[in-house]
Amino acid sequence: MKFLSPKLRYSLIAGLLFSSPSFAQINAIKVEPESWWAGMQNSQLQLLVYGENIHQFEVKLIDANGVKLIKVDNSQSQHHLFIDLDLSQAKPQTLIFGLYQNDQLVQQIEYPILARRNNAKNRQGFSNKDVIYLITPDRFVNGNPDNDNHPDMLESANRKDKDGRHGGDIMGIRKALPYLKDLGVTQLWINPLLENNQSKYSYHGYSTTDYYQIDPRFGSNEEYKSLVEEANSFGIGIIKDVIVNHMGSGHHWMTGNNSLGLPTSTWINGQSNWLQDNKNITYTSHRRTTVQDPYAVVADTAEFENGWFTDTMPDLNQRDPHLATYLIQNSIWWVEYAGLSGIREDTYSYADKTFLAKWSKAIMTEYPQFNIVGEEWSANPITVSYWQAGKHNKDGYQSYSPSMMDFPLYEKIISSLNEQENWGSGLINLYEMLANDVVYADPTALVLFEGNHDTNRLFSLLNQNLALYKMAMAYVLTSNRIPQIFYGTEVLMTSPTKDRNDGAVRADFPGGWQGDDVNVFTQQNLSSQQLEALSFTKALLQYRQQSVAITSGTLTHYAPQNGVYVQFRQADAETLMIIYNKNEQPLELDLQRFNQILPPSATAKDIVTQNVKRLDSTIKLTQKGVTILSITQ
Amino acid sequence: MKFLSPKLRYSLIAGLLFSSPSFAQINAIKVEPESWWAGMQNSQLQLLVYGENIHQFEVKLIDANGVKLIKVDNSQSQHHLFIDLDLSQAKPQTLIFGLYQNDQLVQQIEYPILARRNNAKNRQGFSNKDVIYLITPDRFVNGNPDNDNHPDMLESANRKDKDGRHGGDIMGIRKALPYLKDLGVTQLWINPLLENNQSKYSYHGYSTTDYYQIDPRFGSNEEYKSLVEEANSFGIGIIKDVIVNHMGSGHHWMTGNNSLGLPTSTWINGQSNWLQDNKNITYTSHRRTTVQDPYAVVADTAEFENGWFTDTMPDLNQRDPHLATYLIQNSIWWVEYAGLSGIREDTYSYADKTFLAKWSKAIMTEYPQFNIVGEEWSANPITVSYWQAGKHNKDGYQSYSPSMMDFPLYEKIISSLNEQENWGSGLINLYEMLANDVVYADPTALVLFEGNHDTNRLFSLLNQNLALYKMAMAYVLTSNRIPQIFYGTEVLMTSPTKDRNDGAVRADFPGGWQGDDVNVFTQQNLSSQQLEALSFTKALLQYRQQSVAITSGTLTHYAPQNGVYVQFRQADAETLMIIYNKNEQPLELDLQRFNQILPPSATAKDIVTQNVKRLDSTIKLTQKGVTILSITQ
Repeated sequence: MKFLSPKLRYSLIAGLLFSSPSFAQINAIKVEPESWWAGMQNSQLQLLVYGENIHQFEVKLIDANGVKLIKVDNSQSQHHLFIDLDLSQAKPQTLIFGLYQNDQLVQQIEYPILARRNNAKNRQGFSNKDVIYLITPDRFVNGNPDNDNHPDMLESANRKDKDGRHGGDIMGIRKALPYLKDLGVTQLWINPLLENNQSKYSYHGYSTTDYYQIDPRFGSNEEYKSLVEEANSFGIGIIKDVIVNHMGSGHHWMTGNNSLGLPTSTWINGQSNWLQDNKNITYTSHRRTTVQDPYAVVADTAEFENGWFTDTMPDLNQRDPHLATYLIQNSIWWVEYAGLSGIREDTYSYADKTFLAKWSKAIMTEYPQFNIVGEEWSANPITVSYWQAGKHNKDGYQSYSPSMMDFPLYEKIISSLNEQENWGSGLINLYEMLANDVVYADPTALVLFEGNHDTNRLFSLLNQNLALYKMAMAYVLTSNRIPQIFYGTEVLMTSPTKDRNDGAVRADFPGGWQGDDVNVFTQQNLSSQQLEALSFTKALLQYRQQSVAITSGTLTHYAPQNGVYVQFRQADAETLMIIYNKNEQPLELDLQRFNQILPPSATAKDIVTQNVKRLDSTIKLTQKGVTILSITQ
Repeated sequence: MKFLSPKLRYSLIAGLLFSSPSFAQINAIKVEPESWWAGMQNSQLQLLVYGENIHQFEVKLIDANGVKLIKVDNSQSQHHLFIDLDLSQAKPQTLIFGLYQNDQLVQQIEYPILARRNNAKNRQGFSNKDVIYLITPDRFVNGNPDNDNHPDMLESANRKDKDGRHGGDIMGIRKALPYLKDLGVTQLWINPLLENNQSKYSYHGYSTTDYYQIDPRFGSNEEYKSLVEEANSFGIGIIKDVIVNHMGSGHHWMTGNNSLGLPTSTWINGQSNWLQDNKNITYTSHRRTTVQDPYAVVADTAEFENGWFTDTMPDLNQRDPHLATYLIQNSIWWVEYAGLSGIREDTYSYADKTFLAKWSKAIMTEYPQFNIVGEEWSANPITVSYWQAGKHNKDGYQSYSPSMMDFPLYEKIISSLNEQENWGSGLINLYEMLANDVVYADPTALVLFEGNHDTNRLFSLLNQNLALYKMAMAYVLTSNRIPQIFYGTEVLMTSPTKDRNDGAVRADFPGGWQGDDVNVFTQQNLSSQQLEALSFTKALLQYRQQSVAITSGTLTHYAPQNGVYVQFRQADAETLMIIYNKNEQPLELDLQRFNQILPPSATAKDIVTQNVKRLDSTIKLTQKGVTILSITQ
């Protein structure tokens, strides 16, 4: 079968059966998902089948081993069918559907039901044992310069444009695996890799134009699957960035010569207005409390949930039951197909909340040990806590996403490190923030980060102060959270600090492009500060991997005094004392205060410098920064 | 019996029985509480009986109708006894205790068991139907200049000293009752009236030196009781300001010629250190999260709870079971004796939290319709919510105080009114704060205030802007909370705005002293702004009294747009639309947005101006400020 275009790659077209002109075959019938598996927890499957005028056909299962056709819905659109199947008794096989007209078979569709990999259900999601490394794939490593451009893709590579595509790809990530393994990270959250066939600003990946296809400028579905397998062999899992809130305006549902239009009349929010006039768009208010606020009005909630981000991001209406099923199956398909260990859900609260519960429950039911982390960009723990599985919300809302991004604690790390130390400012605010952990169903399941693709660069936010940088990194990597770092933070990548600076924040990773002057992989031209940061981060990451105290121990902390904040992490025989010191001048820290935890006669090993010493009644802190001591009797 | 000193007023001394020198009588035996009642919910009573060397006596009940002596504890101190009584079968009567030595009766003590007033148990506490008016009694009205000084009291009146005593008293409050009734307030929270016999800075009342005696410079116990009765006849209840955390260093337990010392060895925190060296005091850290923080260390919690505020405020150790009982009985005694409708508990979280639960439970068990409001001065709703009855705290802690002061919302009113309106600042922060109501067991039971004796004056904090002042007052008085205003706010009393300015904040109420130039009671020399503020406040207070929508209706609000924030309060047929407008320029507000609530064809009556008009598709807002419309079809 000729490869026509990426759009048609999952066409499964049977040969011509009849030549009668009255029973015209459809040139390209497409089915999504392109395949499924026997033995899934949820035995129902809904196929979206589309082709020109497909609604005129009657659909029957011609060949099926244990599969039942429950229902065909052809009432939604002229060009789309929804076929519900019962796979509870299904064996791996190729199903054959027949399309009939006047009881005559016109056309056949083959559909693969695959065998699952061993133990696919019990895949382990990312956890407190992990460190997540976030990669913006267009900006990390250009492993295959041949795929920088693609004939079917609207935007070409232009490394000079900060908002353009730079050519980073899946092959680049694969090439970096030894580096990442050596650094000590164990999970990669990769910004979206799905096709974003937009005319511009498409590199970030948040404007999906195909839910079942890796963007050819990043690679292919097969390459993605291979990346996961190879990463796994390095002890590294892959977390997929999923967007259920919106898609890209370049999706064939919305536009293009071959567009068959939207599958139902309620597929996107504001659909009828937009169809009449594609400038008639209601934008989101970004007022996220409206979906939790007991006093909010329906109109405000709707404006937040149903409004679009921009005219290039049509807002999906997850209340449409067919779309809901489509999105849920799409998430599960990628987990099963590629072998993922987690999902990061973008702009969490902007989607319909009933759907979010259903979506997260479906995934976690399919994979009980899996993990999902949602993005709710709010500094308020109450707002964030609403979305975590296990939270008993006052309005009865129940989520099933085990984790959320810990924006409140992230923002407090930055502000408290930058603030002057006095009674009411500085480290005390970081200390007091942790008392808010009581609002979370499980604070230790949150993902704490030092930055991401939407925040300005850590080193810059801390005024390029290496001591503060080390404090932030130590906090994130020794906290009772799941830590996440952003590519390049380990070598002090910078950005402006006011407002958004996406292009600069997501700058190319040094050494990711042939001919780069500075190269992190070879350490060529790294400054001494960069080398120090890299070696500090690596030391922490490597210590962490064998530290039960960090990955599952208790946390205890002492209210900051005189610019010094002390935390302890403890498990069994392992005790870690972490001292955050904001003083520029040397200081003698009285150890008497810590005798609830410190043994009377103790030896301390600095996990970074490896220096060992006996602890006396005081400890000398010679400079601003963090000291991490492994304590033994 | 000769009145010796206020210290001895509750001495109940029987006559000399024997002249034998070996059985010396004690000159002044004192008993606390000075009386009790038959038929209380809790039938146990513990008397603290003290007199020099009283521990040598055996105690027996000589005359008792249905009262059982459970236990006498003379092991705590040479000069103090604790007598436990069972009053479950008690009739009103005068008990007679005998003090025996070698089986010989040496002395008798009479103790009154009184009859309760009708329905004393079911007294109604302050509620959402009320408006609380806070009075600092030394600074409100000097109704009786004869009691400004008292021979037994260390500090004399000096109106020129901002931190001195100015002479305000209970009689002054009684004289102001018609004004207060006319203003429209229904509860008075009066700063502490108990004896504060400190050498200086005693006017505020937070250094108790006698738990059973009104300070003679304010009046007497009997006068206090009469105030309550008279206030009740005006439809006004009295809320007592209770301090269980600390006392005054001038208490006879601590100091003085007749001091018998502390009743037990653990009566105050740091007792043995202080006894050895009264400069050896640990002060509180004021780190209030340490009693809620799941990661806090014991030492930090102890430092917060057990530390003293100042050396003039010994910190009570409520873990001492005798002190705990003493404080609980003291609170109940005043409710029963004076006929109170509420308690405001000072510095709530600083006391032992197990005790606080016991204390609040004991009071609410005794008076199930009563109300207690605690002060937890934190801007964080999570911190405040911990202490409210009905909250399911993660650590299992259960409080029984129905209400807390709503510091978080108070602080947001001030800051959001002062902030420039833009996407992320101004009224939006007030709007978003209400979404945090989900953390409270019952947000509507919180007391919301425009200021108190510890905060700078509202009008000053709002830059003396009358429009902002009206917005703040309208917010507090139409909120779904129990509102509280501070004396003098109705006439725009001012203060500095940076740091603490206690003396200025608690300035004398104009007209409270003979010869005052400005007099609120006669309206003499009030500025036109003051008159406008007074009339605005009065209009609101009076509307409120008959408004079911405000006192028990639903609250709905619209996310602020363009500097305009709209709230609705609704109950049955009553709909109130409250429009907060920060624009200096006239503005047409489109009413279409509010059609979830506004009837299609409505009439609006401005509750302040009484202007009536039909609502068209828009409403013209001519100036910055608040508009409160009563809407009818």
